Amino acid sequence: MPRKKAIVLFSGGLDSSVTLALAKRLGRECHALTFAYGQRHSVEVRHAKKSARALGAASHQILKLPFPSTGSALTGKGRKIPKDRSLATMSGEIPSTYVPARNTVFLALALSWAETLGAEEIFLGANALDYSGYPDCRPQFLRSFEKTARLGTKAGATGRRINIRAPLVRLTKAQIVRKGIALGVDFAKTHSCYDPDRRGSPCGRCDSCRLRLKGFQEAGVRDPLDYRHCFQSG
Amino acid sequence: MPRKKAIVLFSGGLDSSVTLALAKRLGRECHALTFAYGQRHSVEVRHAKKSARALGAASHQILKLPFPSTGSALTGKGRKIPKDRSLATMSGEIPSTYVPARNTVFLALALSWAETLGAEEIFLGANALDYSGYPDCRPQFLRSFEKTARLGTKAGATGRRINIRAPLVRLTKAQIVRKGIALGVDFAKTHSCYDPDRRGSPCGRCDSCRLRLKGFQEAGVRDPLDYRHCFQSG
Repeated sequence: MPRKKAIVLFSGGLDSSVTLALAKRLGRECHALTFAYGQRHSVEVRHAKKSARALGAASHQILKLPFPSTGSALTGKGRKIPKDRSLATMSGEIPSTYVPARNTVFLALALSWAETLGAEEIFLGANALDYSGYPDCRPQFLRSFEKTARLGTKAGATGRRINIRAPLVRLTKAQIVRKGIALGVDFAKTHSCYDPDRRGSPCGRCDSCRLRLKGFQEAGVRDPLDYRHCFQSG
Repeated sequence: MPRKKAIVLFSGGLDSSVTLALAKRLGRECHALTFAYGQRHSVEVRHAKKSARALGAASHQILKLPFPSTGSALTGKGRKIPKDRSLATMSGEIPSTYVPARNTVFLALALSWAETLGAEEIFLGANALDYSGYPDCRPQFLRSFEKTARLGTKAGATGRRINIRAPLVRLTKAQIVRKGIALGVDFAKTHSCYDPDRRGSPCGRCDSCRLRLKGFQEAGVRDPLDYRHCFQSG
């Protein structure tokens, strides 16, 4: 019997790498999808290519996306990435790194690819516990998108559902790190920082670095990325 | 008081031209959004630019989109556009011109722009009566997308709704033609054909031409486009 096909939204970060490894473990034929949308951390896109291959993706598409650059500190050249926010602040406030409707756009394009390839699932690494306050990571959003996808596609209209799978959505970062270890993910190949330096070294102070570091700390595991440079200079 | 901002999905065809004219008449500041996604009728994109200006759009963005070319007869080079389908067949069957999840993708990107510009509405010319059988033109899909948009955006999470407006959804093509006349739309500037020739002349036989011609005929109005060439050769 042929393997079930799945699209995996893949940034090359910690969460999406664990998600891809998990989908592989579940026996899926994984088609990774990475978006280049003018994000500052475009080093992410370069690393994602190698990383998807290492994790066993059957194919990997990198799509250029026309997000308005003024919408977010993540895509805008003149805006500052917030640093040193407390975890309490993160959970209560949507930060300036929010990219308008990002996951709606990502999932919409993933849906188009899923339907074209005959994939039955879209995996993404959305996380609603240790996260940066983005509304489009919450389970109720994902459920609603799944329903919209059913109503708005030929697949859905002809009884072939395309399901949204967010296997990390209710895990802590520490649990995600442990799951990654169990699946053999090489964390040295995963990049999470919103504001890396030119060589790709993480800043250690943006929301994404802070959540990642907290996860490794709570899991009692050393993060193999090199944070020394930024802590010395910052 | 400043005018309410709206994004208008604008292909330059009959339906979206009437929709843009309608949104203008309602007093909106209209920001037109056109997608170039490898469709055969890319003449549409060239005409849309002039047409949006003539209809009074405050701004006009043309976004290049990475749809998989194998997904549809509208984007695939080697596939035939169906011709001479009866209207009964159209309403009962999703045709090969269906582009996987097209309106989900269009609306997702419109949502991102709407949130960035502070627009409160997204207008589109979707039509569920005289249409080509696409599932993503139906009211239940549009309502579901609106809910998804509320859950997946900062705007929605902070109580500022972005509404989806499909003012033509329950009109016949004849009613749309009449509405266009009442609004002063210049139909000579609207292009609907899926398979125009090199000079941009419509084929007269694809679903889109057939629905358009039926609309003009039932409205008792002459379509100003020149169909002579195609009927002579076909």
